[in-house]
Amino acid sequence: MGQDKKRILSGMRPTGRLHLGNYVGALENWIQLQNTYHSFHMVADWHMLTTAPEATREIRDNCIEVVIDWLSAGLDPHKSPLFVQSHVREHAELYLILSMLITVARLQRNPTVKEQARDLGLESNMSFGHLGYPVLQAADILLYKADAVPVGEDQAPHVEITREMAKRFNFVYNREVFPEPETILTRFARLPGLDGKKMSKSLSNSIFLSDTAETIQKKVMQAYTDPTRIRKTDPGHPEGCVVFAYHQKFEPGTVKQVECDCIEGKLGCVEHKRQMAKKLAEVLAPIQERRVYYESHRSEVQDIIADGDKQARDVASKTMSEVRQAMDLE
Amino acid sequence: MGQDKKRILSGMRPTGRLHLGNYVGALENWIQLQNTYHSFHMVADWHMLTTAPEATREIRDNCIEVVIDWLSAGLDPHKSPLFVQSHVREHAELYLILSMLITVARLQRNPTVKEQARDLGLESNMSFGHLGYPVLQAADILLYKADAVPVGEDQAPHVEITREMAKRFNFVYNREVFPEPETILTRFARLPGLDGKKMSKSLSNSIFLSDTAETIQKKVMQAYTDPTRIRKTDPGHPEGCVVFAYHQKFEPGTVKQVECDCIEGKLGCVEHKRQMAKKLAEVLAPIQERRVYYESHRSEVQDIIADGDKQARDVASKTMSEVRQAMDLE
Repeated sequence: MGQDKKRILSGMRPTGRLHLGNYVGALENWIQLQNTYHSFHMVADWHMLTTAPEATREIRDNCIEVVIDWLSAGLDPHKSPLFVQSHVREHAELYLILSMLITVARLQRNPTVKEQARDLGLESNMSFGHLGYPVLQAADILLYKADAVPVGEDQAPHVEITREMAKRFNFVYNREVFPEPETILTRFARLPGLDGKKMSKSLSNSIFLSDTAETIQKKVMQAYTDPTRIRKTDPGHPEGCVVFAYHQKFEPGTVKQVECDCIEGKLGCVEHKRQMAKKLAEVLAPIQERRVYYESHRSEVQDIIADGDKQARDVASKTMSEVRQAMDLE
Repeated sequence: MGQDKKRILSGMRPTGRLHLGNYVGALENWIQLQNTYHSFHMVADWHMLTTAPEATREIRDNCIEVVIDWLSAGLDPHKSPLFVQSHVREHAELYLILSMLITVARLQRNPTVKEQARDLGLESNMSFGHLGYPVLQAADILLYKADAVPVGEDQAPHVEITREMAKRFNFVYNREVFPEPETILTRFARLPGLDGKKMSKSLSNSIFLSDTAETIQKKVMQAYTDPTRIRKTDPGHPEGCVVFAYHQKFEPGTVKQVECDCIEGKLGCVEHKRQMAKKLAEVLAPIQERRVYYESHRSEVQDIIADGDKQARDVASKTMSEVRQAMDLE
């Protein structure tokens, strides 16, 4: 099954139900890629501990929720395993080994972790595991000898660290165990949330894949609107408009028309929002239909994960055996 | 087997054959303790990577050498398992989890790692895993729920970190999973090497447990002597004398007499060295006899390790199951 294809590793943290930002920024891309790559899809539960080790109460349920969203959106477990990171203990072993091959100074220079720590107010209190988050990510990727990793721009520095670690391991132990994975940058830029900021669960500005048509309608109607436009006939400003961004993504065929109508004051915000809410509900309808199925077949979802875990473990244990042999530990 | 006894965890790095300093500073103590505690004896091979990740070529053989020395010195595998750290992968999993529960700042304050890095000239190039060495050690200890850890004074700060980590885990996950291990300070102070510095393989000042009587004689005759004593009849200075330190340790009954004879110029250095070399050879003779047996029964040693690994894994996997349950990950 896909053994001769190139491999990719994609991961997502189990933060709960996925939103349109996750879909556009990652999942939609993964669904495309599963046809050309042997894809490993990982629910990164251990990564949750890097920033909030005390908040584990919901991780297990959220792992299931994420996988249900993945399946509903179109990931095919027959093409590529869906698995949970902590079920494949080899991630921890490779993390330990790689942690010996990178300096503290190199990790402290990493811009992504620095920013994240600042955003979370964790700068002076950063945990050792948080600093090592790119090392764990390198282990995730290298364990499957991924040839490529689909990521957003903000994660690109981590793939760079992964490449460095692959090179370093191969050099130190004088054996080509790991390929240096390429970065596949997600084509579509970040989808804005309802308030114009990055769509993020913690900002309460998200449209979830599981939102009903009514909820979507309500949310979109309250989306951030051009404050300079009082009457419909005032000229609109599509470039900063959240609804216009959704339009670009989900109805690209009519973008030019809508842009003109908005600028010329022919299409009002209320009308445009109503149209887009309808469109989004249409896009999500088939996903939600599948969700209804999986929600009432949870044991099937559990089986899919168990099967994915097993496939992942098979590959991971082979890699670790090679790693130990290269290091003369086995 | 010892399930109702209190537990201890002791570890040693596989640096090769052990010397008298290892014996006096640790092993001799362990041999005593195995009668009162359920003792786990770990060859800390992963710890070798913290300071020299590239030097793995000899680790596997050195693990065997260390276990042969342990067995020869009197550790009894029927009382307490002898095992190799990297054979029990749970150490890596607990290391990963504990790494989320301690700050970078706390680890950077640790005096032992700081000193070690300075001694090795690794200060600015310290690896992430080296900084995390006390976290790995905490995982080693807590995995067996050790009630106590026999260590030298220099390792006491690490046991303190282990206690902090036990407390932190129990607090964060609101369950008493880990006891806070006590420190059992090794009674006898460091045995000096032949040059008067700490006995250490890397300083080439060691008497190995496997040294023959001839080698011991040769080494002791070249030991550091009181430079102010030219003739036998000159007054000696026992307090700084390496041979006198060995005498204190291995022939305590005649210490007073020898001290007087030395100070009064009745006992010359050459004569004293000859006596002590003979004594040391006597002390080591039974250990070496057993070594001859184990060297010609290596597969028996392998079996002892495999059995120890299994016993260790049984305990470790039970602990990890509790850990995951406390964290709601299982």
